[in-house]
Amino acid sequence: NTIVPHVRVPNVPGGVAMVGQSGWTAEVMVEFGFERGLRFSGVVSIGNQCDLKVQDLFEYWGNDPDTKVILAYVEGIKDAKNFMEIAKKVSLRKPICIWKGGSSERGAKSSASHTGSLAMSHSIYQAMCRETGIIEATGLEDLMDLGAAFSCPVVPTGNKMGLVVDAGGGAIACIDIGSRLGLEVPRISAEAEKRIVTYLEGRVPPSANRNNPVDLVWISLAEAANIYTTALENVMPEVDFCMLIGYAQLKDDNLRKALSAVRDRFRKPIFWAAGNPSTQVAGTAMNIADGNPSYLFPDNAMRCIGAMVHREQFLKKVRAEDK
Amino acid sequence: NTIVPHVRVPNVPGGVAMVGQSGWTAEVMVEFGFERGLRFSGVVSIGNQCDLKVQDLFEYWGNDPDTKVILAYVEGIKDAKNFMEIAKKVSLRKPICIWKGGSSERGAKSSASHTGSLAMSHSIYQAMCRETGIIEATGLEDLMDLGAAFSCPVVPTGNKMGLVVDAGGGAIACIDIGSRLGLEVPRISAEAEKRIVTYLEGRVPPSANRNNPVDLVWISLAEAANIYTTALENVMPEVDFCMLIGYAQLKDDNLRKALSAVRDRFRKPIFWAAGNPSTQVAGTAMNIADGNPSYLFPDNAMRCIGAMVHREQFLKKVRAEDK
Repeated sequence: NTIVPHVRVPNVPGGVAMVGQSGWTAEVMVEFGFERGLRFSGVVSIGNQCDLKVQDLFEYWGNDPDTKVILAYVEGIKDAKNFMEIAKKVSLRKPICIWKGGSSERGAKSSASHTGSLAMSHSIYQAMCRETGIIEATGLEDLMDLGAAFSCPVVPTGNKMGLVVDAGGGAIACIDIGSRLGLEVPRISAEAEKRIVTYLEGRVPPSANRNNPVDLVWISLAEAANIYTTALENVMPEVDFCMLIGYAQLKDDNLRKALSAVRDRFRKPIFWAAGNPSTQVAGTAMNIADGNPSYLFPDNAMRCIGAMVHREQFLKKVRAEDK
Repeated sequence: NTIVPHVRVPNVPGGVAMVGQSGWTAEVMVEFGFERGLRFSGVVSIGNQCDLKVQDLFEYWGNDPDTKVILAYVEGIKDAKNFMEIAKKVSLRKPICIWKGGSSERGAKSSASHTGSLAMSHSIYQAMCRETGIIEATGLEDLMDLGAAFSCPVVPTGNKMGLVVDAGGGAIACIDIGSRLGLEVPRISAEAEKRIVTYLEGRVPPSANRNNPVDLVWISLAEAANIYTTALENVMPEVDFCMLIGYAQLKDDNLRKALSAVRDRFRKPIFWAAGNPSTQVAGTAMNIADGNPSYLFPDNAMRCIGAMVHREQFLKKVRAEDK
């Protein structure tokens, strides 16, 4: 049920696995996902699950050392008990993100003719997600965004967000969405603030906002890598991850290497949203392929940060219960 | 507060007006919005509103015959009573879509240092939106999406959706989201279904789904314009608008002309979501510029359909109260 007429995707392996119970979702994931920087361990298009079920693939990828994150578009769940057991087991090892089709009564009826899927109450499905730690995706683009997030080699171990931005309005968007997701944007210490203010003086225009968010206002693109990393290095020790809204070109290898170096030094993720999305389509893809979750708009980044932080909270809870 | 270092935007006028209380939002709207097919009557970057306020621009564009839709990023509202009066008056004539920054307590604090905006409880703001008919946007991309929707020369006069799709999974996504937005997906009459089934026989693979959604499964791209328009013509009389998920290339002038002709004949909008987003970035922009709201993913299209349908319901209610 999947038709990819012109294969434009080079064979570069990676850590994202995907199963789509609609040919369209598998195709788009392969083609558009690759263009957006996702690198795959496997993509499977599945139909009415008369032999292999989606959970069989979860189990396979759960044991596959190359797979870091499992994505799925699912219309119907067969053998729900077996699905729950496998999903719960695998989800403790690797994130499973599912976009569920047929969440409405009328949609479920339509999916019955599409893939022969039996209807399941959406509230029951959502309870299954909470129980197993499955991450609910809201659509195909959201699945790709989550794939980019969980391709990062490190995870946020808490909910404290650092913000370094070239776009003051973008910082406010991140704080607003972060509030709804239960994230904190702590003020950083006076010492760290002083180091940042001293460093930035003469390098960027003045601003009243230098303490989380660190508003850079406007930077010389030639100095971007140094300015971003200096700001990040001073904020990172006091937060669990950073969100950077930048204008400098991610196509520049040195900038991406500098960001990856800060990430690896602190073992904390740096999320990126483009201040200038129209010129950063290729650059964000390159940064994702380097393991830095990158998006054209802050909203997409924030939804993924929420998913990662909530997953860590889920894992902590399960581990505490197991003791 | 707005820096667009390299002007890449040709001077092609249109019906979208935008005011951004953050340079970033105005820049992105001009550059990325244009690339996505939006055509502008004016874009204004505004700061702390010490002279002109956003509502002054609403009033100006409300009286401007070239402006069809007003978009805004707003952090703070000055002179709320005056804002309400103007917004209510203008909104009856033209849609006003606002993305509000500072909707959280912490975000409002940050916007105080960014644009000197006074905090306003977000629930009060939302009540103002309901009262005036202001459409709440969720982010910058959503603002652009809404700009594309309201650039359409016709509006859906009811909530009945017709679905013609090349991607069965995409139809289910539309139905699920449509359910949450209060849209109906009525079964079409036996006569219309029979005409569609007869026409499609031998042209596309068999499917159990030919009655809303009309699942085309797979079409010959050379025949796309004929197949889409024949399906649309048979569904349109029984619905208020159609949603089409297609794989044919929108860069093809004949296809876009055929879609516009069906729209104009029935005076009902045709929304488009790409089955193959990676190859349709330029095509969707061309279709938007032709007045057909087009998106890379069905979710974006559905949110905009919801906004248009709800606006028509608001206008009907206000007109009924005025009698």
